Amino acid sequence: MKISKGLITAAGEPHRRIPLQTLVDSDGATRTVLSMLLNEVFGSGVEQVCVIVPPGEEAVYAGAAEGFGDSLRFLPQEGPPGYAQAILCGKEFLGREPFVHLVGDHVYVRGAEGNLAQRVVNLAAEEGCCVSAVQPTHESSIGRFGVIGGRRRPDRHSVYEVDSVVEKPTPTVAEERLAVSGLRAGYYLAFFGIHVFTPEFLETLERHAAGETEAAAGVSGALDEVARQSRYLAVQSDGRRYDLGPKYGLLRSQLALTLSGRDREELLAGLVELLSAHPDAGGRSHGE
Amino acid sequence: MKISKGLITAAGEPHRRIPLQTLVDSDGATRTVLSMLLNEVFGSGVEQVCVIVPPGEEAVYAGAAEGFGDSLRFLPQEGPPGYAQAILCGKEFLGREPFVHLVGDHVYVRGAEGNLAQRVVNLAAEEGCCVSAVQPTHESSIGRFGVIGGRRRPDRHSVYEVDSVVEKPTPTVAEERLAVSGLRAGYYLAFFGIHVFTPEFLETLERHAAGETEAAAGVSGALDEVARQSRYLAVQSDGRRYDLGPKYGLLRSQLALTLSGRDREELLAGLVELLSAHPDAGGRSHGE
Repeated sequence: MKISKGLITAAGEPHRRIPLQTLVDSDGATRTVLSMLLNEVFGSGVEQVCVIVPPGEEAVYAGAAEGFGDSLRFLPQEGPPGYAQAILCGKEFLGREPFVHLVGDHVYVRGAEGNLAQRVVNLAAEEGCCVSAVQPTHESSIGRFGVIGGRRRPDRHSVYEVDSVVEKPTPTVAEERLAVSGLRAGYYLAFFGIHVFTPEFLETLERHAAGETEAAAGVSGALDEVARQSRYLAVQSDGRRYDLGPKYGLLRSQLALTLSGRDREELLAGLVELLSAHPDAGGRSHGE
Repeated sequence: MKISKGLITAAGEPHRRIPLQTLVDSDGATRTVLSMLLNEVFGSGVEQVCVIVPPGEEAVYAGAAEGFGDSLRFLPQEGPPGYAQAILCGKEFLGREPFVHLVGDHVYVRGAEGNLAQRVVNLAAEEGCCVSAVQPTHESSIGRFGVIGGRRRPDRHSVYEVDSVVEKPTPTVAEERLAVSGLRAGYYLAFFGIHVFTPEFLETLERHAAGETEAAAGVSGALDEVARQSRYLAVQSDGRRYDLGPKYGLLRSQLALTLSGRDREELLAGLVELLSAHPDAGGRSHGE
């Protein structure tokens, strides 16, 4: 199957305004998070991308797209809130076609394999099924993500057959139901925020969303059904994902981008300078 | 005179979207830059604040105001671009009243004196003239700011009578025209981004703006005229100003805010962790 469309969700409360944040990428260019995501998604070879945004904020998101304008559409999430509903806002745009989906509150740093969205798209195109990017994640962090259970495909490097999906599992649930042989102890395969979804998945999601209770339960619930009833693959990334949502998420992401990029020396010098200007927490700037 | 109105300019290209950026403040709260600026300006005792924003982006800026909504107005900069024009967009809102003005691309960390906007407002109210906050700034950085020349008032701590204003002076121009006795060698008094302006200043600005050539020349030019023809004071801040506009401006500001705040230890621990995860620039994340 051919994947020519992309969907980025950016309307939910935890995602809100994150794509408008500015970071300096690992090449030293100042860009919006949206522009970094568009670079990733268009790098996968898709021709048209739809971004789901808060109603009334289409113009400011379009302004943050920085040169990707022509092949872009911005659609407001007018109806009920939630992640599943955000994806379903793209239904008319997507039609009966498979699509690559990126969440709007992450940035990605490529590993040795290059563009991960492209790798997910290529695998989905070959195999004709849903594919999710995953990353080995320590049990202390899995409570923030969807996590898959499954087994490694002997014939393909870093590819897994997915058996089940659980949203934000506890370590106990993960140990019982999501252990994947070949990973380090205490590690599980958590979503990386990049997926290829089929039209059939969209139908399943629509059914789940009608009964959705928790923000992301609808998507992981629908993917769990797909995993149980049909073929669903995961591909392990050697890149890194940075979640911009948590407190200090932007700072952590910016530091990681810069430490792995061309401005590393400049950053280290700047840190030394800042630390010497702020020798202790009771310094002159802490007078409130 | 009584100052009951505030004006924040956030529509110009270098300012654009900066007030929508998210930072963690020195108390550990995640906030938009706009919300931090509003906290500063309302802390000065004003009752109404107007924010000048790009046309069509009123809603997203209102969303970023985070609880300051009731006393706020958002006005689009519909006409010509430029800093002076942005201030003049507030003319109808301001009427014939003095007002406190903050630029939209800085954040402030209070020094021992507390709320600096309040200090500027109090001095202007007492003296009935324009007042600008200034900070001693090394000659290597003055090319980014408006810089004043003048002399220290013997009767008041950190208050200066302003004789002249030059926008983005070279070190040579500064040495010839802007030397202020009592400062360390090579230091000049640069604008801090907080001012109280009078209705008379607004008239002068309108005249200058008509002939404006460079982005900020109009404002500094008008202030230079005010300095030469009437009383104009500057007050030196012991707080810090962080310019969010330059490359890595956000990163530098976030690090400085956190290093002078309650999450200092957490940041230092996180830095050590990040540095050990990115031991060198040729690491695994730099595969592009």
